[in-house]
Amino acid sequence: MNKWSNREELLTHVRAQMHDKRYQHTLGVAESASLLAKRYGADPLKAELAGFLHDYCKCWPVDKMFEILVRHDMPIELLEGEKELWHAFAAAIVIQSELGVTDPEILQAVRYHTTGRQGMTLLEKVVCVADYIEPNRNYPGVEEIRALALHDLDAALSHALGGTIRFLIEKQKTVYPLTLIAYNDLVSRKGRVGGFNG
Amino acid sequence: MNKWSNREELLTHVRAQMHDKRYQHTLGVAESASLLAKRYGADPLKAELAGFLHDYCKCWPVDKMFEILVRHDMPIELLEGEKELWHAFAAAIVIQSELGVTDPEILQAVRYHTTGRQGMTLLEKVVCVADYIEPNRNYPGVEEIRALALHDLDAALSHALGGTIRFLIEKQKTVYPLTLIAYNDLVSRKGRVGGFNG
Repeated sequence: MNKWSNREELLTHVRAQMHDKRYQHTLGVAESASLLAKRYGADPLKAELAGFLHDYCKCWPVDKMFEILVRHDMPIELLEGEKELWHAFAAAIVIQSELGVTDPEILQAVRYHTTGRQGMTLLEKVVCVADYIEPNRNYPGVEEIRALALHDLDAALSHALGGTIRFLIEKQKTVYPLTLIAYNDLVSRKGRVGGFNG
Repeated sequence: MNKWSNREELLTHVRAQMHDKRYQHTLGVAESASLLAKRYGADPLKAELAGFLHDYCKCWPVDKMFEILVRHDMPIELLEGEKELWHAFAAAIVIQSELGVTDPEILQAVRYHTTGRQGMTLLEKVVCVADYIEPNRNYPGVEEIRALALHDLDAALSHALGGTIRFLIEKQKTVYPLTLIAYNDLVSRKGRVGGFNG
């Protein structure tokens, strides 16, 4: 990542992609990701860089994202699913081709920052949780996730993803299956047994 | 199903598999399933029979269910998942081998009455919803599902399955992926667009 040893130059590119509120969020995620990385033993510089880049395409027109995803043979499940998920997969492609980011750990952390996935790496978890708890975030339950993130990254993430799933269902919206799989993976690794109404 | 034209004889078999509270629930599901079938144009006799049989194995020892599921090559996802789900898949096997029930519609309605699945048949929906709203059921939200079931079977089912998923996540338990797929299927058929926090 020598190309981006000049942080200001990178941030100029990032800032040009989004409105100011999204840029402030971006800086918040980078800051929180760096702190979480230090706490849990991930690489703070990679975490910060992934934070800077995670929403690179968030404010792009959906048609532009769609075109990129189709060109890169993304799964039909994604293309037919929620447009809100596209920016993460598009960013993982674009920051590689436009900014020359090649570190697979950073690319994966950007790619899965919204959906999560089974078997998330430490850096992926750090960026995903940072996205939920960065200082500008303010939604019901954020304080509980911030508190969990101080001592249990997996618990913070399973509560964060679980909260998203519950929120979507409350609104009778569809839930991307990968997010449930990520949630199940975190919960079952804790050795908690599940149950089911029947 | 001529063999079970004698309803009393069938119910003697069913009653012998469970404690009284479960038997009362069983009769309730059969009654509600029959009513829903009449309302939505499914076969009321098949619905009633599926209701009588749906919890045939519910009170069996889990070891016995496990053995049956292994012998019938059930997916590893099921065997390693929540034991609470086993009774439905076991019943679909046992009522065939022990009671001679061969109607595939009834067997499927029994098999998927707890998890749901993508592309549920009308009879499967009827039995699944009946299981949620039969007169003995009493849980937060049951009245909303009963009300929906009067005029919109799919909405009743998506709310019922959604409620189960939310309940499990609130308890930080795992959720069987098929249930989310069933929920997504119902919601997306309604043409509602989804969303995602990101």
